[in-house]
Amino acid sequence: MPHLLIIGGSDAGISAALRAREVNPACEITVVAADRYPNYSICGLPFWLGGEIADWRDLAHRKARDIEAQGIQLLLEHTAQAIDPADKTVTVVDVDRRSRRISYDTLVIGTGAVPARPPIRGLEQQGLFFLRTMTDGFALHDYLEMQSPASAVVVGGGYIGLEMAEAFVHRGMQVTLVEYFPSVLTTLDPPLGALVADELSRHGVTVVTGVTVEAIEPQRGKLVVTGSGGFHAGADLVLAATGVRPDAGLAAAAGVETGRWGAIRVNQAMETNVPYIYAAGDCAETYHRLLEQYVYLPLGSTAHKQGRVAGENAAGGQATFAGTLGTQVVKVFDLVAARTGLRDTEAHQAGFDPLTVQVETWDHKTYYPGAQRLHIRITGDRRTGRLLGAQMVGHRAAEVSKRLDVFAAALFNGMTVAALSDIDLSYTPPLSTPWDAVQVAAQVWVEHRKPDRGSG
Amino acid sequence: MPHLLIIGGSDAGISAALRAREVNPACEITVVAADRYPNYSICGLPFWLGGEIADWRDLAHRKARDIEAQGIQLLLEHTAQAIDPADKTVTVVDVDRRSRRISYDTLVIGTGAVPARPPIRGLEQQGLFFLRTMTDGFALHDYLEMQSPASAVVVGGGYIGLEMAEAFVHRGMQVTLVEYFPSVLTTLDPPLGALVADELSRHGVTVVTGVTVEAIEPQRGKLVVTGSGGFHAGADLVLAATGVRPDAGLAAAAGVETGRWGAIRVNQAMETNVPYIYAAGDCAETYHRLLEQYVYLPLGSTAHKQGRVAGENAAGGQATFAGTLGTQVVKVFDLVAARTGLRDTEAHQAGFDPLTVQVETWDHKTYYPGAQRLHIRITGDRRTGRLLGAQMVGHRAAEVSKRLDVFAAALFNGMTVAALSDIDLSYTPPLSTPWDAVQVAAQVWVEHRKPDRGSG
Repeated sequence: MPHLLIIGGSDAGISAALRAREVNPACEITVVAADRYPNYSICGLPFWLGGEIADWRDLAHRKARDIEAQGIQLLLEHTAQAIDPADKTVTVVDVDRRSRRISYDTLVIGTGAVPARPPIRGLEQQGLFFLRTMTDGFALHDYLEMQSPASAVVVGGGYIGLEMAEAFVHRGMQVTLVEYFPSVLTTLDPPLGALVADELSRHGVTVVTGVTVEAIEPQRGKLVVTGSGGFHAGADLVLAATGVRPDAGLAAAAGVETGRWGAIRVNQAMETNVPYIYAAGDCAETYHRLLEQYVYLPLGSTAHKQGRVAGENAAGGQATFAGTLGTQVVKVFDLVAARTGLRDTEAHQAGFDPLTVQVETWDHKTYYPGAQRLHIRITGDRRTGRLLGAQMVGHRAAEVSKRLDVFAAALFNGMTVAALSDIDLSYTPPLSTPWDAVQVAAQVWVEHRKPDRGSG
Repeated sequence: MPHLLIIGGSDAGISAALRAREVNPACEITVVAADRYPNYSICGLPFWLGGEIADWRDLAHRKARDIEAQGIQLLLEHTAQAIDPADKTVTVVDVDRRSRRISYDTLVIGTGAVPARPPIRGLEQQGLFFLRTMTDGFALHDYLEMQSPASAVVVGGGYIGLEMAEAFVHRGMQVTLVEYFPSVLTTLDPPLGALVADELSRHGVTVVTGVTVEAIEPQRGKLVVTGSGGFHAGADLVLAATGVRPDAGLAAAAGVETGRWGAIRVNQAMETNVPYIYAAGDCAETYHRLLEQYVYLPLGSTAHKQGRVAGENAAGGQATFAGTLGTQVVKVFDLVAARTGLRDTEAHQAGFDPLTVQVETWDHKTYYPGAQRLHIRITGDRRTGRLLGAQMVGHRAAEVSKRLDVFAAALFNGMTVAALSDIDLSYTPPLSTPWDAVQVAAQVWVEHRKPDRGSG
């Protein structure tokens, strides 16, 4: 009976295991997980830490016993220490430091990512936290519960930083968010990032952008964060949310090739350069469907898709990862900010001839109560008319996330911007406009593309 | 200067006028409208009648003066009486019965639809209303305001019937809704229609299905509605919401061909059989993208799209109507019910080999507060795996409408059900699941399609 071994018990690893079981009821499947929390939704940690979720156990996508009920063996609190591709074995140690070798026929590496440690002095201070694993979450939760900190500085204005700023506000804390770039949420263009910063400010968060944080030092019971331009903020707690890097050391030591970002090189079958070894999730590169090349873009939704492909192929199947579109969404208080595809600068770098327009419109007919403004940026190729990307910011009641997904579906299919207006989208006055906001934006883009635009 | 004449001031007509102006700044454009309310959103009437919208003037998509500012002449309260294709003129009369002939170079017919009058005795009773035009709306509104009726019977459980049942409840009225078919909202399959009926009941509406209404008679100050199976209900007001039929008599009298449903025959350029005459909106047939044939499916969103194509072509352009997918959505109290594409029976009739599965899943991670159940029915072709249609019912906070539009975009592009899982859709725990509900449903369908399913 062939043995599929999976290193990593998070999204990619468990997706691989479940899919392998679906396509091949006969194979033996073992998942080696470093902690005791397989298949937990680490994306949900900010909501537990903010008090919106009462019990951390609810963060489990599914219970360990449900996974085991599928005939998947879980080796929890086992750390993989070495892969021997020649021998097709993996050496693992348990919590008692007992070592053993496990043979595999196929191996899926899903070791994930670890927090990037920016060049800031004092990252080891007590009261400074990273947030990546359940264990990180427990440490921060204990500190919040036991120390009842009144204030926090969040370093980094990406998804985790934004969600944790909101979480701290939910706990009644005073929050300062400091960001290196001129705007927060730099995965969106600055005009949209500014709307997110406004939303934070409206809820009492002090937002400071364009600051290089240099040091974190304890002073009179506080942590003081200092940075460029005289930035200086003291708080009871500091969260460093400065991104992640792939955890690919184990793979690299075994001769598995890594790329520019240190992530494991894979093809669309999620195969590495080493026979019988697959990789998926935040430790691996991601095929980008529009760029037609590999990037590093660690996201939970992608980890699920890649894991599914890796698991299917490692179990003898023939699956292909169709590629990421870079789709991302975050809720910040009452605002939702989302993007898919390429932004103007990214498209330009990739050799497209991009045109980007920003449109302000409404989620539904304004005569019906509760209409919300939508801010949409749409990027298309001037030469071919092809849709390249879209960004959207609006109220959480405005169906921003799934409206953005209409753009994602259009991108997936290589549609032109003009063709968006041809799709028969759903309309009723409380939920949409006869031309949906997506189409309103597309029509503005098409008008701007006209060669005589601006000539008079 | 070529003259584009448009008969009809609602969605199709005004869309045609606006698009003609965009593509051809030089042409003369005249819109003949029978009433004084050009470009009003008649889809919004139930919300005004229910009191959710205070001022009927807000129902205007745009003001008459804004249309005229585009260089479009509006002849309001002018009724077209005859079209002479040989002479290329249209005879119109104004409110004072003054007649005149207007020449055209191209003509767009957008005369819309009128209420179907089912074979029910007593449709002329005072206190019985149809709802189709602004004028109908005013009549009903006057009655509601002046008579303060305490109860209503709504005949017909389609979109208008459902929305008006809700509107009457908003006014504090006792409502009985009676439907000919065994379930309400028969554009969806019965298990989903039943959820809509439940929602009505939860809000105090008495729902009676499977009844052929036979007569409406005044009795002691009430209207009594009687029907098959001993149905008998008295109320102060009756709304007949029993569908519409195309208003194509003017066109037919001029030799414009109509089809099976009495609607004007058109091609994808929105041309009729008569040279220089186009038609669009509820008076015309609609090309169905999946059936690859023409159907009668009068919807506001379609009228906008058809009108735009007709206007562009009538002004010298080269546009093509890409076809309807039959996408429809309605909000009923806190529930949203939507569909796109073909249902099982429709697909079967069209020669497909359909398989339909119903899936119950969640709009977002259940650990995050406010997760809502989504009921999704997905229909695909067993032979080819192609997606044929989807239906969805869920809470109004669950992004049902735009989530359904992901299916619509997939249908537009001829995707397989399996490929839905390849789309990089947006994910964040408060708004979605790592595999979006759309993909969860798709994966269940793919499992059910397996040939060995059920063999053991």
